[in-house]
Amino acid sequence: MNFASDNHAGVHPEILAAISSINHDHVKAYGDDDYTSNAIQKFKSVFGDQAEVFFVFNGTAANVLGLQSALNSYESILCAQSAHIHVDECGAPEKFIGSKLLSIQTPDGKLTPELILPYCIGVGDQHHVQPRVISIAQSTEYGTIYSTDEVRSLAKFAHQRGMLLHMDGARISNAAAALGIGLKEATVDLGVDILSFGGTKNGALFGEAVLFFKPELAKNFKYIRKQGMQLASKMRFLSIQLETLLRNDLWLRNAKQANEMAQFLFQEVSKIPSIQISQKPQANAVFAVLPSTLIPKIQEKYLFYVWKPEVSPGMDEVRWMTSFNTSKEDVLDFVSVIKNQCP
Amino acid sequence: MNFASDNHAGVHPEILAAISSINHDHVKAYGDDDYTSNAIQKFKSVFGDQAEVFFVFNGTAANVLGLQSALNSYESILCAQSAHIHVDECGAPEKFIGSKLLSIQTPDGKLTPELILPYCIGVGDQHHVQPRVISIAQSTEYGTIYSTDEVRSLAKFAHQRGMLLHMDGARISNAAAALGIGLKEATVDLGVDILSFGGTKNGALFGEAVLFFKPELAKNFKYIRKQGMQLASKMRFLSIQLETLLRNDLWLRNAKQANEMAQFLFQEVSKIPSIQISQKPQANAVFAVLPSTLIPKIQEKYLFYVWKPEVSPGMDEVRWMTSFNTSKEDVLDFVSVIKNQCP
Amino acid sequence: MNFASDNHAGVHPEILAAISSINHDHVKAYGDDDYTSNAIQKFKSVFGDQAEVFFVFNGTAANVLGLQSALNSYESILCAQSAHIHVDECGAPEKFIGSKLLSIQTPDGKLTPELILPYCIGVGDQHHVQPRVISIAQSTEYGTIYSTDEVRSLAKFAHQRGMLLHMDGARISNAAAALGIGLKEATVDLGVDILSFGGTKNGALFGEAVLFFKPELAKNFKYIRKQGMQLASKMRFLSIQLETLLRNDLWLRNAKQANEMAQFLFQEVSKIPSIQISQKPQANAVFAVLPSTLIPKIQEKYLFYVWKPEVSPGMDEVRWMTSFNTSKEDVLDFVSVIKNQCP
Amino acid sequence: MNFASDNHAGVHPEILAAISSINHDHVKAYGDDDYTSNAIQKFKSVFGDQAEVFFVFNGTAANVLGLQSALNSYESILCAQSAHIHVDECGAPEKFIGSKLLSIQTPDGKLTPELILPYCIGVGDQHHVQPRVISIAQSTEYGTIYSTDEVRSLAKFAHQRGMLLHMDGARISNAAAALGIGLKEATVDLGVDILSFGGTKNGALFGEAVLFFKPELAKNFKYIRKQGMQLASKMRFLSIQLETLLRNDLWLRNAKQANEMAQFLFQEVSKIPSIQISQKPQANAVFAVLPSTLIPKIQEKYLFYVWKPEVSPGMDEVRWMTSFNTSKEDVLDFVSVIKNQCP
Repeated sequence: MNFASDNHAGVHPEILAAISSINHDHVKAYGDDDYTSNAIQKFKSVFGDQAEVFFVFNGTAANVLGLQSALNSYESILCAQSAHIHVDECGAPEKFIGSKLLSIQTPDGKLTPELILPYCIGVGDQHHVQPRVISIAQSTEYGTIYSTDEVRSLAKFAHQRGMLLHMDGARISNAAAALGIGLKEATVDLGVDILSFGGTKNGALFGEAVLFFKPELAKNFKYIRKQGMQLASKMRFLSIQLETLLRNDLWLRNAKQANEMAQFLFQEVSKIPSIQISQKPQANAVFAVLPSTLIPKIQEKYLFYVWKPEVSPGMDEVRWMTSFNTSKEDVLDFVSVIKNQCP
Repeated sequence: MNFASDNHAGVHPEILAAISSINHDHVKAYGDDDYTSNAIQKFKSVFGDQAEVFFVFNGTAANVLGLQSALNSYESILCAQSAHIHVDECGAPEKFIGSKLLSIQTPDGKLTPELILPYCIGVGDQHHVQPRVISIAQSTEYGTIYSTDEVRSLAKFAHQRGMLLHMDGARISNAAAALGIGLKEATVDLGVDILSFGGTKNGALFGEAVLFFKPELAKNFKYIRKQGMQLASKMRFLSIQLETLLRNDLWLRNAKQANEMAQFLFQEVSKIPSIQISQKPQANAVFAVLPSTLIPKIQEKYLFYVWKPEVSPGMDEVRWMTSFNTSKEDVLDFVSVIKNQCP
Repeated sequence: MNFASDNHAGVHPEILAAISSINHDHVKAYGDDDYTSNAIQKFKSVFGDQAEVFFVFNGTAANVLGLQSALNSYESILCAQSAHIHVDECGAPEKFIGSKLLSIQTPDGKLTPELILPYCIGVGDQHHVQPRVISIAQSTEYGTIYSTDEVRSLAKFAHQRGMLLHMDGARISNAAAALGIGLKEATVDLGVDILSFGGTKNGALFGEAVLFFKPELAKNFKYIRKQGMQLASKMRFLSIQLETLLRNDLWLRNAKQANEMAQFLFQEVSKIPSIQISQKPQANAVFAVLPSTLIPKIQEKYLFYVWKPEVSPGMDEVRWMTSFNTSKEDVLDFVSVIKNQCP
Repeated sequence: MNFASDNHAGVHPEILAAISSINHDHVKAYGDDDYTSNAIQKFKSVFGDQAEVFFVFNGTAANVLGLQSALNSYESILCAQSAHIHVDECGAPEKFIGSKLLSIQTPDGKLTPELILPYCIGVGDQHHVQPRVISIAQSTEYGTIYSTDEVRSLAKFAHQRGMLLHMDGARISNAAAALGIGLKEATVDLGVDILSFGGTKNGALFGEAVLFFKPELAKNFKYIRKQGMQLASKMRFLSIQLETLLRNDLWLRNAKQANEMAQFLFQEVSKIPSIQISQKPQANAVFAVLPSTLIPKIQEKYLFYVWKPEVSPGMDEVRWMTSFNTSKEDVLDFVSVIKNQCP
């Protein structure tokens, strides 16, 4: 057990069981099978019938290929400077789409129309990349959450300018759970055009869904996915995982558990004077600032990452993440280890 | 059960069991874990210590990214006109590497130095793409197999010209099994420089390995894989599958079963006068020519694909594939269905 | 003077004079000037008002960027195996568009619907690149010319399948001159959708025009050209060259001279028994087969290229090209040199 | 005459004369001619024998292709936020190289080791693009100039980290002239690895040179240039322009004139109280802040561009550029027009 990342957790037993349960018979490959049709239907029943749904292997691909479907290479992506697609994909969007990412500084990982406006320049000018997609992460890389109003205003801002709103939903389940609303209410109903629906970080073995809420964006996605090296041959085993997350609210149970454990951790460490919480813990992450010298000692027992070194003299910002299988006992033990080090 | 493709089969029970067996604890993501180190060590113990090993999600990526590591965009790939990378990847190599594929007509899916020679032109001439990699599939897309001497002569031809030999080994296990030699003897010992080692078609849930036998080719592959959208976060579940294939010779048992069933099918259908075998069945495929009108009737019972329509008036070429879980009974029943239709 | 290529000739005096004549005053850069507007208007007056016109530096770019405007990376270009875009651009289309070129063998550099048909496969199948553009060169790389009916039938074939017809018109002036029709009659009136109009090979210092006859294809071309590194800052000097070619029929005078000299050369060398003409000389090239041993001796006096070595034992195919400034005297002297060597 | 850009000027008479003077005879295309060899030799005599020299059509290409030779797609370019390659190339570097540009805020368009350091992170980490090239413009887009020490310290910083220093020298002549040193002293002697040597903005019709001071970077550049759509067929007319700039110090005479006129303009407008100079005018540009309402009235007579609107309430920043053919009379008249508007 560690607090380093929600993808350090394994596979939820219900998902592994679902995979096993369909491991018989020969089944058509590449998604031309009933398991995949059923999974797509399940997604449509949740997100609305106009949703077009595709499954891919991982989150990098969900974001990059989803964005590619909406972008020409001379068009740009507006994202936070902390955005995973900007910081942690080794340049995959640039390589695969050929587009420029315009990264925008934010205090908390969240874009606003005001922050974006200065980057919407050069429209119609051949020398400039043309602003085309606003990409937000929900929840963000800082564990913060856009309110429904905030997402709605970004969608309005985008659509008024002929732009699109893309949501990196690697942790959309955590966000919807925290907001106390459904997945549809948290995405398409707010004006999101393209959604990466995260499976891996919420208990899947592997697998994400790309959802298009404007059907024309999906028209050629099957070619984009295949050329993008993301068409699984034994697709049924990918589809069944995503479907299982939507069945019996597994997505919600998993996300709630992770969120609650982050809240619990937050409350406990808030009581420690030498620790300062640096971001509002709204989903399944707690960002904290603590003395650099104490960190390695805590890490001896529990793995986690320093997010930003030296945010102030002698102090580092760390990220503590919880996952679907983090328990209250885990948190309590972790807190006691921290307390042993931090006065 | 069908005879359409070896990726219509599910997952071998030993592989599913291996996945389940490691589904506990939090484990570092992205390959920085012991399961992955052990899997890599297992591959080195089989292929030699100088082998550099990386795991990716699927065969498209194994081939494209493996090739990318060896190519500049102005260099070309020489492959058979029937090569999977040319015909069935929706242009992924061109998109991702930016390179030209020079496809060469062959009678049986197999390249030879003589067939390649006329394409090795324009060397040093800035107007021409520069020949850089010969890519062969072993076994081929036609179920044929290069002899060890044939691979060796291609490697020699390549190396004499400063070129590299890439092997699409989506079915390398079938080839090695058919040749009666080990995996190392079938690849690096013959001069292969880059190998895609297929897992999916030989019983894995998903997953392939990319092997470099010249370490300098692997130097930057971790970045190529990540930017290529193929770095699995829960890598351990990918690594364990590939390792399991090498453990207790599962790769060999699976491949042998598939090959033997193809031989058995070949022998049985050879006895049917109206059917003509069109390729030497050396691995786990049988290519046959039969009357077009009879095909749909057989397909009512068993799915398989027409490979080339109208190869002669009224006759289509079909592909029948066997897999690790094809049984003698399956073949016998399939043959009886065929016999019912074909005089 | 040589017979190696029409781009070995220099600049036509009228074009150089036109450049000089506008070299005063400061003028807006990047095409936002009157000279460019006028040039565009001139092209519209010749090709029709719906034509959208853009100027670029060279023929590689005219073809690649023109094609890019019509293609997604998962769509393919169908061209002759001898096509300049396939053979002589060092893979620029693959690099820049990411698309696959499907090259088709032809006897004379000319595609036909019958030759193309077998390559129009896999439509709608995600595994296959989707056929999208037929690209022909007029005149061809073999100095042959499509008749108006032949172009019309290719356009019809393309449009019936939702495809487009692209014409590499590096030598469209030679073709129109040879056909005895206007530029509009030779292109848009036959169904051509995208045209590269060649300037350089017909007397310009540098510069080509890309013409779109379906306005929607041109919609974003200004961004494609800029991102494609082909927006000239001092555009006026490019525009004036292209306009000058259309003014006072300079394009026609130049092309006619080149064509007539090729015809004259053809007639003279036809009389030499040891020389065999290998392609119908319809534009400004003569392809001939002669004894390999004699070629270097002729080349001592006149530069030209061997096109295909060893087409039969001891015989090479050579290409002899004429240009706007080849004179009758040049041809006669060249022929006398040939005669001295070839019995 | 205007003050909008140095590429609004036409061609220097000596350059046009040089083009005319070689417009006779047939000459080998694509750079295989004596004029090109001589031009390359001339560059070597100026920049040192180890310099590898290539000519391309324009500045976009000089920068993008020069950078491509040094970068893998997973490596990054560090540049100022105001860099032309970041702001004004419509995303050409991302499209063509596939690399990420990390843009860094600067007060005056100039990078420093201190500004760059925070971006040199994630080295060796597969999730991050790997910092590889520092790209600076000399003179900068703000008309400022790096001192020789400043360039030297950036080169040292780069080389210590295994990185390279690229110089966008679209206006290197202006910088060298202002620094009072030679071209070699201003580039390779300071540690620059790759240089775009600007011709167009300093009096050429079109054309730039790419110089590599580490020969291994140049090894495959001929293919990169051709595939990059930048190989001129009538190369001699490009080569002669670049050579002419180096002959009889035309580069220096042109640059000095432009610089001196900028200094003169700066001195004159400095006397106007309502105008505030916003950047140190070191090359051939003057950046000034003046009341927004007055600008259109000045523009009625002289074209120039607003660089940044609303830098303070009611005030815009404008850019005034001088060129090789700006005269003292032009400046005086321009200043009088400004004075008529600005108290």
